[in-house]
Parts: sequence; structure tokens; C-alpha cells
Amino acid sequence: MNSATSALLEGMLSDSKSISNCLHSFIGNGNDLELSMRHALHGGKNVRGFLVMESARIHGISPLLSVMPAAGIEAMHAYSLVHDDLPCMDDDDMRRGQPTVHVKWNEHTAILAGDALLSLAFRLVCDPSCKLSSDIRAELAFRLAVAGGHGKLILGQALDIEAENSDLTHDLEAIRNLQSHKTGALIEWSATAGAIMGGADENAMSSYAKSLGLAFQIQDDVIDVTGSSSVAGKTVGKDEKAGKATFVSLLGLEGAKREAQSLVQNACDALSVYGRKAELLKELANFVISREF
Amino acid sequence: MNSATSALLEGMLSDSKSISNCLHSFIGNGNDLELSMRHALHGGKNVRGFLVMESARIHGISPLLSVMPAAGIEAMHAYSLVHDDLPCMDDDDMRRGQPTVHVKWNEHTAILAGDALLSLAFRLVCDPSCKLSSDIRAELAFRLAVAGGHGKLILGQALDIEAENSDLTHDLEAIRNLQSHKTGALIEWSATAGAIMGGADENAMSSYAKSLGLAFQIQDDVIDVTGSSSVAGKTVGKDEKAGKATFVSLLGLEGAKREAQSLVQNACDALSVYGRKAELLKELANFVISREF
Repeated sequence: MNSATSALLEGMLSDSKSISNCLHSFIGNGNDLELSMRHALHGGKNVRGFLVMESARIHGISPLLSVMPAAGIEAMHAYSLVHDDLPCMDDDDMRRGQPTVHVKWNEHTAILAGDALLSLAFRLVCDPSCKLSSDIRAELAFRLAVAGGHGKLILGQALDIEAENSDLTHDLEAIRNLQSHKTGALIEWSATAGAIMGGADENAMSSYAKSLGLAFQIQDDVIDVTGSSSVAGKTVGKDEKAGKATFVSLLGLEGAKREAQSLVQNACDALSVYGRKAELLKELANFVISREF
Repeated sequence: MNSATSALLEGMLSDSKSISNCLHSFIGNGNDLELSMRHALHGGKNVRGFLVMESARIHGISPLLSVMPAAGIEAMHAYSLVHDDLPCMDDDDMRRGQPTVHVKWNEHTAILAGDALLSLAFRLVCDPSCKLSSDIRAELAFRLAVAGGHGKLILGQALDIEAENSDLTHDLEAIRNLQSHKTGALIEWSATAGAIMGGADENAMSSYAKSLGLAFQIQDDVIDVTGSSSVAGKTVGKDEKAGKATFVSLLGLEGAKREAQSLVQNACDALSVYGRKAELLKELANFVISREF
């Protein structure tokens, strides 16, 4: 492992701990609702939260200020997983290396836990105790609502389910569009959050995030074909079994890997304006396509 | 109908139209997700939204400024109904005089429509185009997240389902507690929103809302016993059938009505500080316990 990779992993681990501590400090453990929320948050890589904290850092914003929005995006991501895993959606039994919430508890607990995590996301972004100005909190919350709303994240999930239930085969453009909603919107929110906190232009972070989000999704498709469930922490081989069009089915395994590599290059190029300050974010882009989980 | 009642109904109708127009302007009608969101919003009385707009008015805030937060609380309320009606929750087929979303479409559409309405609620409260200051938007969004979160609204729903599935019989105190979460939290948010927008002390509005919310729920229990499904727009007689402890089962029908009447008196007393400006809110409290739907 080279020194850039180990610096990245060290940074991710440290931020991930801060994010988890923050999240858990807002959730008791007195009832099934709270226990299931904690369960859903457990074992995540907190990549989106790290993106928030690192993009904040390179804009001069301290982790003390960025950790609550970072925790917020992880609550949002966890909610989307809990609901997507439900029997009437993707029907998944395993997530983050453990049984999904509806398997461990039941469906109504999973729906309520997801609802609660979604609400918690906004609470964390808006909470005055995070010490960000109300201008920034209102702006971040507004953009989070748009990114997570019926024109982005939820539209992506609806299109994905529609694709699974129809005979229509998606082409590459349709899958790019679907994934820019489903995976891309929250990643873009995370990467631009730091620029917004720092009052800086967000174009470079936005370009970076668009390429990164797509590379992330392509790697997910690659893992679904080449990975093992025990390493990935979730069921693999599902897409092929379902006859679903993916980046791998459309581009071939090697073609998909090449596409992801080229996107990572674009992502890194977009950060050139930040110079050496953006080293960890560039390394993160490389990590995204080398991970097996 | 006396003149106070007709002024109330006129005011509610006018605000309700503004709220509906606002909500629909944020939702297209191009796909099942958007159509199901519109369906879920259709036919509501928009009482919570009216509360926002009227409490704003008596604090000197114009409807042009308050309509988006008012639409936001109605999106939040609609989400909670769509999810609560799901088969694994209260399993209701009828709501607001029409089939519930999962009956008209399917379960995954209902879950996604609810998620989208919840996200839309925050978008509407945070949107800079509503012209409220970012201080106010961030504060309203923060409080909405708390009111709708795992310590309030969602806890109330979890406790309600738990009560239905257990042999434990709730006493009056337990039901008051449950309902203060399930119904009370959003009503309190609505009533205090105007004071927050106007930068005024919110204690009077908060006391008013606490009594109003409980009276509202008692009347819901009364309608479940005395009402007809066609007038109420939802299935009635469910609580008795389920052997569920309600204000009516614990206090008797007349006792429950007396309790609601006394709460309405408390609600009106709490508004004395506002003098004649609060006439419509007092009338609203009376309307809440005289309604049959």
C-alpha cells in the first residue's frame, strides 16, 4: 500500500468514527425503532460523510463544523438502503454484512426506521448546535431535499424498479441517467457541501462528483459480477440473475472497468484547481474503483 | 351557521386552495411517482397548513411568505398517512374518500411516494424562493425534523402499532402520551410556525396547540365510533373492531366529548393574549370537535 492510500484509509477511518459517534449521540437505544436505526447505520463505509468532511477541509472548514452535515448524509443514505431493501422493492436479506432491518425485525419497523433516518438527516443538517450559519444550514438542507427528492434519488429508485419489472432493456444512456439520480445526487451533495460551507465556487467539486458517482456505480456493477457476498457484505450476482441491464452487461467486464478508470481520471482532473490540497479526494476516486465491498 | 364559523370556513377554503396550488407546482405529473404524490395530497382539509398561515397572519406575516411552510407541513402529514395506511402498518384501503396509494398503485409506489412527500416537506420549508430569512427557514426545518422524527411523530406511530399487536391495554395517560407524539407534534409545529416567522414568543401558540391536538385526536376517536365512512372519507369502526383502547373506550362517548370540549376551552383561553386577532383560531378549535370528517 503506498503512502497516499494509507493516508486516505487513515483519514476515512478517523472521519468515519466521528460520524458514527455523532449519529449515535442522536439516537437512544430504548426501543426497537432506535435499535433498528442504529442497526441500519452499522457497518457502513461512510464514504459520503467522508466526502463532506474532506471537501469541507480543503475549503478551510473544520471537522467540528462539518461532522453534523456528514452524519446527515449518512442517515439519508442509510434510509435509502433500508427502504430499497424491502420485500416490495429490491427484496434483499443482507446489507453491510448483516441481516436487513425487515429481516431482523419486520417490515413496519423497517419503514419507520427509514422514515426516522430520513428525518434525522434533515435534523442533523439544520441543527443550530453544529455552529454553521443559518444561511449555510438552510442552503444545505434545501439542496439535500432536492437531491433526495422525487426528481433525483427517489426518481432513480422508481426507474430502477420499473426497469426490473418491465421487458424494456435499458441502453447505456438510460442507465447513466438512472444512476445519476440514484447514486449521483447524494454524492454530488456531499462533494459540493464543503464548497458551500466555505462560500466557494462549487463547479470543480460538482464535476468531480459527477464522474465519481458514475465510477462508484460501475464498480458496484463490477462487484455484483466478480465479488463475493461475504466481502461485499450484501447479496451479489443479483443483477445477472434478474437479467438486468448494467454497465457490465452493456460494456462487458473489461469495458466497464476501462470506463470507470476513465471517469476516475476525469474526476481527478476536475480537482486540479485545488492543487495538492485535493490529494485525498483524488485517492478516494482511485479507492472507489479498486474496492471489493 | 354563525358569522364566525362562515369566516373560518371561508378562510380555510382560501388558504387550502393556495396550499394545494403551491404543492402541485412542485410536483409534475409525468410518472406514477408524481401521480401518486398528487393523489395522496388530494382531498385533505389542510387544517395544519391553515394553522401555519393563520398563526403567521396574527403575527403580521403575509400569506405569500407563509404558504410554502404551510404546504410543507401538509406534505409531511400526507407522507405520514400514506405510510401509516400500508398493509404492514394500519392496513387501510380508504383515505380522504379515495383508495389509498398502495391500493390504487402498489406498495413500492406508496413507500416511495411517502418518502418523496417527506423530502418535499423539507424542500418547501427551506426553499429560498419563499422569501423568509435563512434564520427562520433553518429554524422551521430543524423543528420540523424533530417533530417528525423518532422522538415524536414516528415514535407515536411505532407505539400505536405496538399497542395494536400486544395484549397490554393502554390507560388514559399512555394514550395521551402516544397521541401527543402522533398527532400533537405536527399540530404544535404548525401553530408555533407563525410565532417563529414573526420572531414572537411562542408559548401561547404552543399551549393552544397542545390542547387543540388532543381535542383533534379525541374527535377522531369519536368519529371512528359515531361517523360514517362516506362522510369521514376513511374506514370507521376500526378501533372498536381491533379492541383498541381509545379516548372513547376509556372515557365513554359522552365523557370523551366533554373532555374534548374542555380542551377546546383551554385552547381558546391560551390565545387570550392575542385578543380579537385570534378569533379564527378559536373558531378552528370549535370546528375541530364539531367536524364529522
